[in-house]
Amino acid sequence: MRMVDLIAKKRNGEALSRDEIRFFIEGYTNGTIPDYQASAFTMAVCFRGMTPDETAALTMAMADSGDRLEFPDLIGARADKHSTGGVGDKTTLVVAPIVAACGVKVAKMSGRGLGHTGGTTDKLSAIPGFRTDLSTDEIVSVVRGCGLCVAGSTAELAPADKKLYALRDVTATVDSIPLIAASIMSKKIAAGAQNLVLDVKTGSGAFMKRSSDARALAKTMVEIGKRQGLRVTALITNMDAPLGYAVGNTLEVIEAVQTLQGIGPEDLTELCIELAAQMLLLCEQGTLEECRSKAKHALYSGLALERLIWMVSAQGGDSSVITDTSLFRKSRCFRSIKARSDGYIRRIDAEKCGTAAMLLGAGRRTKDDVIHLAAGLVLDVKPGSAIRSGDRIATLFSENEDAFADAVNVLGDAFEVSDVAPKPIPMVIDSISNV
Amino acid sequence: MRMVDLIAKKRNGEALSRDEIRFFIEGYTNGTIPDYQASAFTMAVCFRGMTPDETAALTMAMADSGDRLEFPDLIGARADKHSTGGVGDKTTLVVAPIVAACGVKVAKMSGRGLGHTGGTTDKLSAIPGFRTDLSTDEIVSVVRGCGLCVAGSTAELAPADKKLYALRDVTATVDSIPLIAASIMSKKIAAGAQNLVLDVKTGSGAFMKRSSDARALAKTMVEIGKRQGLRVTALITNMDAPLGYAVGNTLEVIEAVQTLQGIGPEDLTELCIELAAQMLLLCEQGTLEECRSKAKHALYSGLALERLIWMVSAQGGDSSVITDTSLFRKSRCFRSIKARSDGYIRRIDAEKCGTAAMLLGAGRRTKDDVIHLAAGLVLDVKPGSAIRSGDRIATLFSENEDAFADAVNVLGDAFEVSDVAPKPIPMVIDSISNV
Repeated sequence: MRMVDLIAKKRNGEALSRDEIRFFIEGYTNGTIPDYQASAFTMAVCFRGMTPDETAALTMAMADSGDRLEFPDLIGARADKHSTGGVGDKTTLVVAPIVAACGVKVAKMSGRGLGHTGGTTDKLSAIPGFRTDLSTDEIVSVVRGCGLCVAGSTAELAPADKKLYALRDVTATVDSIPLIAASIMSKKIAAGAQNLVLDVKTGSGAFMKRSSDARALAKTMVEIGKRQGLRVTALITNMDAPLGYAVGNTLEVIEAVQTLQGIGPEDLTELCIELAAQMLLLCEQGTLEECRSKAKHALYSGLALERLIWMVSAQGGDSSVITDTSLFRKSRCFRSIKARSDGYIRRIDAEKCGTAAMLLGAGRRTKDDVIHLAAGLVLDVKPGSAIRSGDRIATLFSENEDAFADAVNVLGDAFEVSDVAPKPIPMVIDSISNV
Repeated sequence: MRMVDLIAKKRNGEALSRDEIRFFIEGYTNGTIPDYQASAFTMAVCFRGMTPDETAALTMAMADSGDRLEFPDLIGARADKHSTGGVGDKTTLVVAPIVAACGVKVAKMSGRGLGHTGGTTDKLSAIPGFRTDLSTDEIVSVVRGCGLCVAGSTAELAPADKKLYALRDVTATVDSIPLIAASIMSKKIAAGAQNLVLDVKTGSGAFMKRSSDARALAKTMVEIGKRQGLRVTALITNMDAPLGYAVGNTLEVIEAVQTLQGIGPEDLTELCIELAAQMLLLCEQGTLEECRSKAKHALYSGLALERLIWMVSAQGGDSSVITDTSLFRKSRCFRSIKARSDGYIRRIDAEKCGTAAMLLGAGRRTKDDVIHLAAGLVLDVKPGSAIRSGDRIATLFSENEDAFADAVNVLGDAFEVSDVAPKPIPMVIDSISNV
């Protein structure tokens, strides 16, 4: 088998066999197939797509390229979730404790953020002492103790995906539904997922700007899961405006804690209850309505917050900041933005909010950037909010006065005001499941 | 400027500016743009194509990536030719002497062959002592002396094209009309071409199997020439069957000499007269009919053969093998193929003939293969020939008895026999010119 022939086959629009895809992934992982052949191949995939068989074969070849996490000693159901990334998405910090409080275990591998969307491990690193670099044994032990664990993905899980993703990032070949689906699902399968809820975001702040693309991605991932015996439900959710009000690591942890205290933003609370209920449903904890009730009870009883505190301690973190969020370190400087006219907020562009937060120091432009944990922004409004000229609509936080000029400009452009209240967009647009 | 953004732009179907293309070629030549970005880019070009502006910019950026040959001291008109490669194509060895005998100078850079088509420098290396590795000064001096010179392309001419071609060869991105056109024209422009005749082959033995592709390639190259002030004529010529009867280096030199003696194959003689006439026409040596007459006179008077002998001596070769071709070293073994039925030769598949010759040792499968100069095959028939069962239709030559089994099989499959004589296909299918 020669890689050049496989590239030509894909270029000509033919489907590759399982063995051919495995030859590519194994060769690319062990270095016998060079980057320049892999990038020509992925570009051909961008134009030609992949059949469901090819996508499944790619997923499994990448999942098999490294270690597989196993939890043989854990008793009871276990659920996992994944979000395709959005602005202000702190759902994991709320959902995992809710699900754990309902008796279903959650062992979640999370990534670092890049660009305008944040990563869960970055958010957790805002908690003093909190460790995300756990060994497999430590993960199992934390889950056994408190029912949940959120750790960073290790280099040993799906190394082929890591290598290929880094290449796609610099060769303009990220934007391909089969490649995105295989990347996400290979990591989840390597991490031992059995019951998986996918939060596929669509809108200005999401990677998938169009809901048709989000739906296609969701379908592809659900189909991959079906072929591998995973129970998968995908929710297509709205990411036109940021989720909640806070964007930035410490700021988002505080908002997640408020949500677990029952005083969080409505949209965030609604989405977290729905994601948790879907995870419970996959684990056969009752009907969807029963699962929603269980999730709500776990949230409003404070049992979920207790789980988060428990997990923070188990992973070496200082849980006093969770009990009293005023103990979090604050940013040195802040600045506010005021409304310039009367009316209704028609739109808040999530991508611009994410970019503004990044400029303030909350995110990374390149992989090597250092982030400032307390930096970011907190909105005062949502789409539909009535405003009067001069009302504060957002506050920006940074370590560095110089960062405000650009960030204020970008964030100012994020708001659209109109004379009439906009039609509300539902948080959950659609759901697709293989169960 | 970032290469990843240029790849994305091309992927999305937008045209790149002249500066963007120059950024790519300069960066790729000096190593700041890695192979994996170049291959993703060329794959995107395979799908999206290039505008005439982009193709011209790519050509000039590659032509400018190294030295440019100049002939300031040469007096009088100078013409060049290029063939896109075919089986049994020994036209340069006939055409260049004809044109030189008519008083127009020819300084031609030729390549080595790869795959089923041969390269002119390989053919010339069959002449004992003949040197193709000449310096620019030597080329000018040979041309000044005898009016023509055929040399190997030097590493200093269009190095960007060399690097990019080697990459395209292993990433299945050869097959793109703008990339092929820019590759050919950049080398010709760097080699100082002013009046250029292109022989664009189409048919089973050509790179362009379909005449519509050959026509599109020809048009693209003629347009590039127009933009750079080159006078260019492209002939679309038939390469369904091999050109002439001989395939293999020594065997083709012998057939070229026979053609210059006025006793060559009809198709080869016709094409050589036409190519030479078109070169003379570009150099304003009369009307097309006058140029054809001049070319025929140069051929049948023996003046062109004299020029070849002169050039062979000037480039260090032993011209006695030209005067008496029986002095050429012969192959150790030979084998013949007989017709298995009565009828007419309907087709002779040129690609299979080329592959058979390669298997006999006449060509290279990979860049590092060593060729046997005397190996190859000589056909006894042409499409349209009447045959009787048992007639010899081809003779195969090799250094190695073991090579015959495969080669006889491949060559046997090249012949199609039918009950009725096929309709003859014209040698020159079309011509496109910017003059």
